[in-house]
Amino acid sequence: MIWQYFAPLSQSCAGARGLRDDGACLTPPLGQEIVITTDGNIGGVHFPLNAPPWVMAHRSLAVNLSDLAAMGARPWVYSLSLSAPASFFSEQVLAPFCRTLGQMQQDYGIALSGGDTTVYHGPPHIHITALGLVPKGQALHRDGAQDGDDVYVSGRIGDGGRGLRLWQAGQRDGQDPDLRAYLAPTPRLSLGQGLRGLASACMDISDGFLGDLQHLCHASRVTAHVHVEDIPLNPHLPWQDAIGCGDDYELLFTAPPHHRQTLVRLGAELNVTLTRLGYIKASYDEPLDSVVLKWGGCPVTVASPSFRHF
Amino acid sequence: MIWQYFAPLSQSCAGARGLRDDGACLTPPLGQEIVITTDGNIGGVHFPLNAPPWVMAHRSLAVNLSDLAAMGARPWVYSLSLSAPASFFSEQVLAPFCRTLGQMQQDYGIALSGGDTTVYHGPPHIHITALGLVPKGQALHRDGAQDGDDVYVSGRIGDGGRGLRLWQAGQRDGQDPDLRAYLAPTPRLSLGQGLRGLASACMDISDGFLGDLQHLCHASRVTAHVHVEDIPLNPHLPWQDAIGCGDDYELLFTAPPHHRQTLVRLGAELNVTLTRLGYIKASYDEPLDSVVLKWGGCPVTVASPSFRHF
Repeated sequence: MIWQYFAPLSQSCAGARGLRDDGACLTPPLGQEIVITTDGNIGGVHFPLNAPPWVMAHRSLAVNLSDLAAMGARPWVYSLSLSAPASFFSEQVLAPFCRTLGQMQQDYGIALSGGDTTVYHGPPHIHITALGLVPKGQALHRDGAQDGDDVYVSGRIGDGGRGLRLWQAGQRDGQDPDLRAYLAPTPRLSLGQGLRGLASACMDISDGFLGDLQHLCHASRVTAHVHVEDIPLNPHLPWQDAIGCGDDYELLFTAPPHHRQTLVRLGAELNVTLTRLGYIKASYDEPLDSVVLKWGGCPVTVASPSFRHF
Repeated sequence: MIWQYFAPLSQSCAGARGLRDDGACLTPPLGQEIVITTDGNIGGVHFPLNAPPWVMAHRSLAVNLSDLAAMGARPWVYSLSLSAPASFFSEQVLAPFCRTLGQMQQDYGIALSGGDTTVYHGPPHIHITALGLVPKGQALHRDGAQDGDDVYVSGRIGDGGRGLRLWQAGQRDGQDPDLRAYLAPTPRLSLGQGLRGLASACMDISDGFLGDLQHLCHASRVTAHVHVEDIPLNPHLPWQDAIGCGDDYELLFTAPPHHRQTLVRLGAELNVTLTRLGYIKASYDEPLDSVVLKWGGCPVTVASPSFRHF
């Protein structure tokens, strides 16, 4: 199995030596530092238990790539620790699973460095640790938002969340853009790298716009004031739902106002919608109050997702 | 939970920045390359479902450290992706679990760089990716065994396997050395680093002496001739069982005969028994025939573990 399905995915990682050893050897290029991130993807939690193999592969790698994007890194290598029932380790599942990983490796310039497989009785667990590269000292962080910074988001909020609802309702039309946004999210890698030196703080939206903006504000010890009418929302969801649901994998970032023109150009260059939807105030009280939502200038409240520390 | 239990474990990893970001930033010291390895540890497969938290922690980190040892690397950082039932994420489990990780971090000089946690309904999955450091070009590999090399093993074979049987029989005496070898294996890190420049091939024994020696021979495309009476075996197990059971986490390596004296000194220095138990021949036919066992000079056969390609 290793030789047939996984070793070919390691071909572009010279230090993996065809997965023959207990580990792989890696040397980052001079002047680059490594960004390392880990995400577990569990059937029935992070993706539907009845998701096809290509969806499990795409989502599992994409959410890790999205974390690299959030830190301004370019993808380098990843390791894959897979525990799943015996039925998973069949031609029928592994062939499309690995074909999708291979396609994504090409699309995003990342290679498999190694991993581990275990047969057990239960839902599939796809744990990925991804390593990216970033010029030394230029990684983006969550905790740099400053008084007076603008708040931006890429793309549209709620598409992934609506896609999940469509899936749950039995929709299987792979052409539906919302369903596609859920099943095969696009990590904002070019954007993340473009934001180096521009964004004061950055993270990706995985748990939902509102909760993740609270995380960013909590890390930076600031408050964000957001104009709800400016948030680019999926039109098929109530706004309260759209800003609460997860699976967007867009980038949420702050930047000082003098970068506005540059950011407009960057968005146009990369063909990514970047929307300015609020501003940062230096005051900070506690996580749940760290995002002030306004509609037509007046504060509005929404049943907030419970602030989670993980 | 992150802040209380896991962030303290990341304190000695500056680039983890207290686990505030989507990932951690790492720069290996000049002249060192990174060895990366991944092992999943699943309750009911890799450790007993009723194992106490400290055992889950110790074994999960130790088996990854053992892979670093096998490649001659010194530990650097690790990431932890944990999926487990809600009951796992309690003071009662997390406190001893993280206390053990912290103790091992001190013992072996490794720090937590980040990770992920997921609540789901099923046995605990503890997926660890460990990064080690090795002077550039000096990592040990499995595929370097040469005609005429000696075959060595560290420590004793079968202790972990007997320990597992004791556990399964209800033995809970933490002072029993075999039980302890199973519950809290010692990764042979100093030995692995000492073998750089001496061993022509090296790996750790996780699946059993015989099967793993077959793996080494298969990778090197050679045959090993082993004198069974020279294998340092646990005295409480039939030899056929001892060489087949897993969980030894000793190092299995080959070295040219002119290093014999140096290896005797190295073993004495590190207080690790190193036993020479056979030699390598250049011929290679197929995996299951790649280890020739002899007793009193005559070939003996043993029901071989099926050769697994993973």
